[in-house]
Amino acid sequence: MSTYNVAILGATGAVGMEVVRLLDERNFPVRSLRLLARKHDGRTCSFKRRQIPVLALDEGSFQDIDIAIFSAGSDVARQFGPVAVKAGCTVIDNSSAFRVEESVPLVVPEINGDLLHPWTTPGIIANPNCTTAITLMALWSLHQRFRVTRIIASSYQAVSGSGQKGIHELDSQIEAKQRGHDIRREVYPHQIAFNVIPSVGNLLPSGFTDEEDKLENEGRKIMDHPSFVASVTCVRVPVYRAHSVAVTAEFEQRIDVEKAIECLRLAPGLTVCEGSAYPTPIDVSGKDNCFVGRIRRDRAFDNGLSFWVVGDQLLKGAALNAVQIAEELVRR
Amino acid sequence: MSTYNVAILGATGAVGMEVVRLLDERNFPVRSLRLLARKHDGRTCSFKRRQIPVLALDEGSFQDIDIAIFSAGSDVARQFGPVAVKAGCTVIDNSSAFRVEESVPLVVPEINGDLLHPWTTPGIIANPNCTTAITLMALWSLHQRFRVTRIIASSYQAVSGSGQKGIHELDSQIEAKQRGHDIRREVYPHQIAFNVIPSVGNLLPSGFTDEEDKLENEGRKIMDHPSFVASVTCVRVPVYRAHSVAVTAEFEQRIDVEKAIECLRLAPGLTVCEGSAYPTPIDVSGKDNCFVGRIRRDRAFDNGLSFWVVGDQLLKGAALNAVQIAEELVRR
Repeated sequence: MSTYNVAILGATGAVGMEVVRLLDERNFPVRSLRLLARKHDGRTCSFKRRQIPVLALDEGSFQDIDIAIFSAGSDVARQFGPVAVKAGCTVIDNSSAFRVEESVPLVVPEINGDLLHPWTTPGIIANPNCTTAITLMALWSLHQRFRVTRIIASSYQAVSGSGQKGIHELDSQIEAKQRGHDIRREVYPHQIAFNVIPSVGNLLPSGFTDEEDKLENEGRKIMDHPSFVASVTCVRVPVYRAHSVAVTAEFEQRIDVEKAIECLRLAPGLTVCEGSAYPTPIDVSGKDNCFVGRIRRDRAFDNGLSFWVVGDQLLKGAALNAVQIAEELVRR
Repeated sequence: MSTYNVAILGATGAVGMEVVRLLDERNFPVRSLRLLARKHDGRTCSFKRRQIPVLALDEGSFQDIDIAIFSAGSDVARQFGPVAVKAGCTVIDNSSAFRVEESVPLVVPEINGDLLHPWTTPGIIANPNCTTAITLMALWSLHQRFRVTRIIASSYQAVSGSGQKGIHELDSQIEAKQRGHDIRREVYPHQIAFNVIPSVGNLLPSGFTDEEDKLENEGRKIMDHPSFVASVTCVRVPVYRAHSVAVTAEFEQRIDVEKAIECLRLAPGLTVCEGSAYPTPIDVSGKDNCFVGRIRRDRAFDNGLSFWVVGDQLLKGAALNAVQIAEELVRR
């Protein structure tokens, strides 16, 4: 079996740590692993029971690397993506930097993994936005059979979507409240402990945020469905991990709950909760699969379905999807 | 000025305590105040700087009472509502027991307070569901001008919507987590601390819950708009107080953001947050007004508007609305 030289950029971040763990756990054919971070702080990460030092990112970081998984934000991706490609590397980028560039495949392997074949290295492959990936994991199989026209979605997004600093902010605000101290805000513009914040991302002139626009823009590209419409409200909630989305979807074809459930049951990477069962973020944290429940005939649309989908946004919403892309690449 | 003998049933509950406080603060013309609870536990409540004992509810509790405000749940309301009416009392009931009975007015004073005139005591007046009242505080003024056809709404409901025991459950789960103890569940079927629960109320055969149905059923009655359609997902979130609702609404008339804001600004009891400002539950807790923000042209509907509305569900969603009904009754 072929083995590969792999680099992880942003290895000490919330997503990067999951990438390292998943490569280990899923036995990705790693020949060598290079861990990189923007700031070199002497940390190490465990991989195959060895401690691997995290190196400082520089222009030479991608020499001899076959596959680099980037989880370091858009600015770093824009700067070092081309550097890595020039060094002969295939970059799988978790940021939004390249997602809507026409020449860059934007991939959820269960949906459009075929775009990865044949593997024409070097190049950039984009990993979708977390809320988009999780929503599409339920929507795609329904779309294939019933043709979705538009969705209205409201999200319940965990603080780890903002990285380790989001987790720390929730922790420290909870502790401050317990001790009767003043609550400090550094990451979010409002208190997140015991609160919800109806604004994720940057506000655009349309009144939507860039985060809210991703579901439509990326959804169109991933599903190859240019007329897909998504009206989204993204809300941060005081949950550590796993994003939830309440979705109301309209379809071209007649849909009913039984047929929808039949369809969802066959979707790879998705677990269906039926009857009075439904998923919550705590149950789904740490799970590879996305979970869908509260499946019901919608009453606002003739061919409408409402459902609730939850996914670990560090896994299927980020690290797992990136590793699955890498796995798809090396499967010949 | 006339004064009235007033009774508060459920005086020691989360809503009842707010009713007592509001009657005091708003100088309701109280001649005598009788505080009642199902269980008599020797507690007192402060009113006009006097401690008033809470009495045990019995068949004779409503003798000589003019107005009784009930916040004790549907079963108690069904049992003691008729008793109070027979004793010559006007009952303002916070439960869902009588809301959709044709002969019972269901009132948000800013919307249909005219139903209360002339005051034909005795009788029952129903106070709407909290999420319904808060949503309609923003929707009504838009409906008057643009005629709403259907809405899709997702809620973010605070634990005090389940009464004091909801607050206690969140508190004790947070404390258990901080101390590394096991997390116990008594009120909610899933952990609520650091989680969200996409199920409020009882599941119906339709797949919606009775809580989700209230927005359509009660909205139709309050707005006198029998064809109004509401597709709702109700979600409990780890917030102490104030419910939030993400609403996407379709209208008959052409709507734009400027006209919508103009309209919302004139709505009584509503504060409009514009531009990058938006309300969060913590900001709105303890406030009489409901707050609306994130007002934007929706993209799923031609004449669509999306917005985010937050209200203190113990106040406008319950106690304040009940006291406003009482105020409307005595205003001749």
